[in-house]
Amino acid sequence: MGELCVRSVLVTGANRGLGLGLVQHLLGLPKPPQWLFATCRDPKGQRAQELQNLASKHHNLVILPLEVANPTSIKAAAAKVGEHLGGSGLNLLINNAGIVKITLLENETLEDMTEIYTTNTVGPLLMGQAFLPLLKKAAQGSPGSGLSCSKAAIVNISSIGGSIASFSAWEMIQASSYRCSKPPVTVDASVKGMLKVLSSISEKDTGTFLDWEGKVVPW
Amino acid sequence: MGELCVRSVLVTGANRGLGLGLVQHLLGLPKPPQWLFATCRDPKGQRAQELQNLASKHHNLVILPLEVANPTSIKAAAAKVGEHLGGSGLNLLINNAGIVKITLLENETLEDMTEIYTTNTVGPLLMGQAFLPLLKKAAQGSPGSGLSCSKAAIVNISSIGGSIASFSAWEMIQASSYRCSKPPVTVDASVKGMLKVLSSISEKDTGTFLDWEGKVVPW
Repeated sequence: MGELCVRSVLVTGANRGLGLGLVQHLLGLPKPPQWLFATCRDPKGQRAQELQNLASKHHNLVILPLEVANPTSIKAAAAKVGEHLGGSGLNLLINNAGIVKITLLENETLEDMTEIYTTNTVGPLLMGQAFLPLLKKAAQGSPGSGLSCSKAAIVNISSIGGSIASFSAWEMIQASSYRCSKPPVTVDASVKGMLKVLSSISEKDTGTFLDWEGKVVPW
Repeated sequence: MGELCVRSVLVTGANRGLGLGLVQHLLGLPKPPQWLFATCRDPKGQRAQELQNLASKHHNLVILPLEVANPTSIKAAAAKVGEHLGGSGLNLLINNAGIVKITLLENETLEDMTEIYTTNTVGPLLMGQAFLPLLKKAAQGSPGSGLSCSKAAIVNISSIGGSIASFSAWEMIQASSYRCSKPPVTVDASVKGMLKVLSSISEKDTGTFLDWEGKVVPW
């Protein structure tokens, strides 16, 4: 696997965790993206401080406000990204923004279920719809026939908890003792792995669920 | 596999399709349930006519109003079922109610996604929460240690379209030409198969996705 080489990328939920890690590692690539759009709900807030610091040092980093549960906010962000890119398209959309609320099954509510589904599931779909014209433009303007992240791709970030088939994940979420006994991989290692996987995926990986090492996770 | 033998059952979305078929076949069992609760959104409406006809002939059939996307409606139905059952519990909850709207991915909206998720996914969860005390009561009052539908169980009805892993299902939903070329199994055959499967499932089947013949469907 070579290094990821991509002209323009957008990462949602980029102010912390994996999103921030992805931005940092993308900026540190041998050939960093010419355009890196980092979105979060409140780019001027305290929780986006690290992102603001990065933007003051990297002129290819553009921070944009985006609430992925809000169709109007998504459309506004897509328009802004289009303006920045001028005539060119967006190569890679990384739907990373997500929320989680740890609740036992018996205490789960309609409100929480709806809020989480809207952000984690409907949000990425609406993002795909809104950015499709820019992604198509990138694909058309890119050489080669096969799909790849350098051409145009949508990557949705999930967690092992998103696998229905994986019972261990279910136990991990339900049982805090297990969560404490199995510390997750660090953000740094995870992001490094993900970028390596992204550099190698192609058409055959469409619709699959891969972990940070590129291993297939059952749905 | 023997015939399903269960003292009390509740079926949601029972006024038509598979729900109505389940009610008809449950009433026709050699040993029909002592209590069969059939719920639908508007039990007095024109679309519940067949269910009303059945209830006039079968005194073990109780029709109740229930909107599975509405927590208040669910709680009211659970209270009513509890009253009917007196001190005994509910053996089998069949979450069958569901809606579908055929839309191409690019035209999907937040409103439709939310409405369908609320009815098809959150509804069954809220049903499980509300009926859990009655299901536990049935389990405690039933002999034997292993799980079964005769003891206490929640069965969620889905469709092959609910499988993320099955590409053929995706194509089936997207491509109407395919849907026309592969007529689905009849309601009658499907319900017969499902009741046979229900009579045989046990603890080992918890969390699995089975088709009407009992074959495992990948998530």
